[in-house]
Amino acid sequence: MPMRCKRCRGKVVIEVRRHNAAFCRDCFVHYVRQQVSRAIAKHRMLAPTDRVLVAVSGGKDSLGLWDLLLDLGYQADGLYLGLGIGGYSDRSKDLSQAFADARGAKLVVHDLESEQGYTIPEAAGAGRLKRASPGGRSSCAVCGLSKRYLFNRVALEGGYDVVATGHNLDDEAAVLFANTLRWDTASMARQFPVLEATRPGLVKKVKPLYRVAERESAAYCVLKGIDYVVEECPLVGGNTQMRHKETLNQMEEASPGTKHNFLFGYVDRAAALLRAADVAELAECSRCGMVTQAPDDPAEAPVCAFCRTRARLVGEASSGGRTLPVVSGRAGP
Amino acid sequence: MPMRCKRCRGKVVIEVRRHNAAFCRDCFVHYVRQQVSRAIAKHRMLAPTDRVLVAVSGGKDSLGLWDLLLDLGYQADGLYLGLGIGGYSDRSKDLSQAFADARGAKLVVHDLESEQGYTIPEAAGAGRLKRASPGGRSSCAVCGLSKRYLFNRVALEGGYDVVATGHNLDDEAAVLFANTLRWDTASMARQFPVLEATRPGLVKKVKPLYRVAERESAAYCVLKGIDYVVEECPLVGGNTQMRHKETLNQMEEASPGTKHNFLFGYVDRAAALLRAADVAELAECSRCGMVTQAPDDPAEAPVCAFCRTRARLVGEASSGGRTLPVVSGRAGP
Repeated sequence: MPMRCKRCRGKVVIEVRRHNAAFCRDCFVHYVRQQVSRAIAKHRMLAPTDRVLVAVSGGKDSLGLWDLLLDLGYQADGLYLGLGIGGYSDRSKDLSQAFADARGAKLVVHDLESEQGYTIPEAAGAGRLKRASPGGRSSCAVCGLSKRYLFNRVALEGGYDVVATGHNLDDEAAVLFANTLRWDTASMARQFPVLEATRPGLVKKVKPLYRVAERESAAYCVLKGIDYVVEECPLVGGNTQMRHKETLNQMEEASPGTKHNFLFGYVDRAAALLRAADVAELAECSRCGMVTQAPDDPAEAPVCAFCRTRARLVGEASSGGRTLPVVSGRAGP
Repeated sequence: MPMRCKRCRGKVVIEVRRHNAAFCRDCFVHYVRQQVSRAIAKHRMLAPTDRVLVAVSGGKDSLGLWDLLLDLGYQADGLYLGLGIGGYSDRSKDLSQAFADARGAKLVVHDLESEQGYTIPEAAGAGRLKRASPGGRSSCAVCGLSKRYLFNRVALEGGYDVVATGHNLDDEAAVLFANTLRWDTASMARQFPVLEATRPGLVKKVKPLYRVAERESAAYCVLKGIDYVVEECPLVGGNTQMRHKETLNQMEEASPGTKHNFLFGYVDRAAALLRAADVAELAECSRCGMVTQAPDDPAEAPVCAFCRTRARLVGEASSGGRTLPVVSGRAGP
């Protein structure tokens, strides 16, 4: 490890091998903030007057991101979504609330079980029972689907301009890696640090941490004294993304910068080419009114993946075409 | 391992996990031949009357390919290019010649040292000495460049319609993996099972083994009694492609079909999108007359990478703009 901070020649606390750099405490915080500022500027993620909703899980990435956005002067509220994963969810919520209180920031809280009638562990059970059924999804898939849907919907109903999520460089590289191994070109085409609100009903999504590695995000929280949930989600163990992260870590070890070059090369050179593959036609879900893919058969009423999955999980009560509004945890702007 | 051949229920000699299949001796040979026929048909690689030049190294892939093309009834001559890698090259040449003799096939022989004035080990030495010099290339890079150039040129001068190379599924997946990790979109755009002769001076290139895994190609040669060079090239040890192959092998082990899905997904869904990135303008090399990329500066005389590298390796004698024709080892058609 180099002996001196790259920026001020002070005492080093962390090395960043892919940049061939090492930093002292203060300069590392400066470096992370700079990476986030650069991401925001390069992709025009946020305007100074934007009302930002940060999707907060209680982990290092989302709490670190919220902290960074507040420090950079953005109007950023947090959104915590209760997933019903026992003690893990309880601790996640408590730490999110503690951070909000300490910073005098607003945390919007929603809850899958009381508002939508299911929890992620129930979805996991249903996934096991109905693995072979069409439309059956793994618990990670139901969790991702629920979060994407509700982040957008809560932001829309709360009048927010942007949803910010804490996806870091390692997350983004692993998802891109998984999609690339299958050449799932439609998913690849939609993976980008910013997704604009291309039509009413969609809120802009941004990933300001995409230039910050996982260990850097953890180090940031430690150095800033942010208390976060260290444990992994108990349902995630051994999933494909974790396997891909291990593979990428091995390659990174052999050749520092592998993940950075893979992700940034995609963002800079390939994403625009892949976007030609994203030909999905959009429509309004006939049950909830949110944006969804139009069905192949134009005579069929569009039903979004969230409504379909929810109907499968909570039974007939919600499969009759009724709109089940999300209970808003806060007043409008 | 399943106990019975998938096709005839006979005694199994090899399992093909990615197809969830196992085959007896005869049905495995049939399977490999079928994969090659399918590759040829799907990408219109060869017409029945084409004169095919198979690039032969003496290894399992190129000798297996030559054998398969002869069995399928194609007019296929072999081309052996002496690289000057000591005993390794001698054994490779002897085994290529022995195969040609046994099959009553024609082997065209060319030699880097006597015709071009350098060997690959010399290029390796020069690479070490001039690592930092612009235009300096690793020995693997010089070898690849020399082969691509001379395969095309010998085929052109010999009146062949197509050059066939023995790249197998593992080779193609590893090269694609390396290019994708860097999103080298220009190289990706040119990686495909068939490259048409898009202008005079270029001969069509095909890779009829791209659907056949490395171990299947080895098994094919063993079962057909083809004697091939088992040793790896002594210069290749620890190169990046071998590291990537190990990574892919680990992923294949955890999830059979990973390589197949990665390569075939690219060929079927992504290659056409990436091709939009291949904007290289072509020109005639001012020294040898072969096709090369046009220089950025239109006032500059185009010089191809082969002529530039050769000038660097053999010194002034060839750097003065003289054309150094390839000595043909056979009469024209």
